[in-house]
Amino acid sequence: MTIKAVVFDAYGTLYDVQSVEGVTEQAFPGHGEIITQIWRLKQLEYTWLRSLMERYEDFASVTRASLDVTLAVLGLTAGPGVFDRIMEKYLHLDLYPDAREALAALKSRKLAILSNGSPDMLNALVRNTGLHEVLDATISVDACRTYKPSPKAYALVEATLGVAPDEVLFVSSNPFDTSGAKAFGFNVAWIERVTPQAMAAAWQRHDLVRPLTLFKALRMQMDHLGFEPDHRISSLSGLPSLLS
Amino acid sequence: MTIKAVVFDAYGTLYDVQSVEGVTEQAFPGHGEIITQIWRLKQLEYTWLRSLMERYEDFASVTRASLDVTLAVLGLTAGPGVFDRIMEKYLHLDLYPDAREALAALKSRKLAILSNGSPDMLNALVRNTGLHEVLDATISVDACRTYKPSPKAYALVEATLGVAPDEVLFVSSNPFDTSGAKAFGFNVAWIERVTPQAMAAAWQRHDLVRPLTLFKALRMQMDHLGFEPDHRISSLSGLPSLLS
Repeated sequence: MTIKAVVFDAYGTLYDVQSVEGVTEQAFPGHGEIITQIWRLKQLEYTWLRSLMERYEDFASVTRASLDVTLAVLGLTAGPGVFDRIMEKYLHLDLYPDAREALAALKSRKLAILSNGSPDMLNALVRNTGLHEVLDATISVDACRTYKPSPKAYALVEATLGVAPDEVLFVSSNPFDTSGAKAFGFNVAWIERVTPQAMAAAWQRHDLVRPLTLFKALRMQMDHLGFEPDHRISSLSGLPSLLS
Repeated sequence: MTIKAVVFDAYGTLYDVQSVEGVTEQAFPGHGEIITQIWRLKQLEYTWLRSLMERYEDFASVTRASLDVTLAVLGLTAGPGVFDRIMEKYLHLDLYPDAREALAALKSRKLAILSNGSPDMLNALVRNTGLHEVLDATISVDACRTYKPSPKAYALVEATLGVAPDEVLFVSSNPFDTSGAKAFGFNVAWIERVTPQAMAAAWQRHDLVRPLTLFKALRMQMDHLGFEPDHRISSLSGLPSLLS
């Protein structure tokens, strides 16, 4: 394959969305992990539901509403200061440790992010973590007002970079996103952070009796939607050898 | 309001999808509850994702794929006989105890089901439980090849019954479905089987440390999508007085 552009999902792929757990735990001691997991579950659900309802609101709004429902479900109340402090973390998420080096090794090709994030959130995040220096474009689905895995979202890559789908390697750790990208026609590399063997072993050890571990692990298993990724690698550092 | 038709969601509203737990527990002793919960979670996710990917497959196919991924995630293997026996239960789900009486009390109006279920599954289920005698129509989203909460799905009601959206009372226990129905323009009654107070109390008692209780309870809390139901009732038996 001739890959002219490598396009990355942001949340969960380059940036660790689990890194909000520090601030959620600080705000609600003992509840950090469960807030983090339900928040992410609801955040994704709301992107899908709003797209399907044809009632788009941007990712900042969806992220606030999903944090709001999470706290409500758990019977927790946050003052505006606390709520905003948790939300603020989304502009300063941790990069995965191997992200910077992997991007640097790929810079002979066009490099971009295609993310559900709203432009303000994404631009702040990319700038705060210095990735604006290596990326050719930061593409937000906000331009088409519908979320991944809609083909309209993936079509923004060609519209922005001028590169055909079969010249793109799309990289994501989110199974729904790899399925959508593959259905659209991209070459797809899935960052498989938890293997099925590790998942099954954890289950047999009863580690998954804890709901939070189960939530997290479930989201990391490949979906059965009929669109398998072309490549499975365990971390971003596997990308350069995939392309050489 | 002048309500000319009462339209029901099927799975989770008239029929108890949790009633598959008997057969999943029989097939995989000790795993019945977790299979039931993950299966339902994935089943709903796949309807949303396939709709958004514009890769519709019918509900029988989605239900098989979601059972398949559930067993894979848990490291369980089912022979074809076992798999089919579990699937078969979807044609014989338990009616909620108050469903038959509530429908009978409403029969001066048009009564219908609008469901994600494929026509074969729905027709078998309705016939097996005798509801074909009281329903004027059993409407499947298969006619528009996209799932709820797409407005295309809700529009099938007017196309089938000839009743305008504001003359319909739509009844569902599924928060995503009530949000979609309200956004579409129906009058909406939400069967709220678990109150926020009960949910918060269960959490405080640590009942939700068990992942399965958490999964089930989460799905029963109203979503924060900006579309509140018109009515909240705790069971189907509250419907007749709502309309009198």
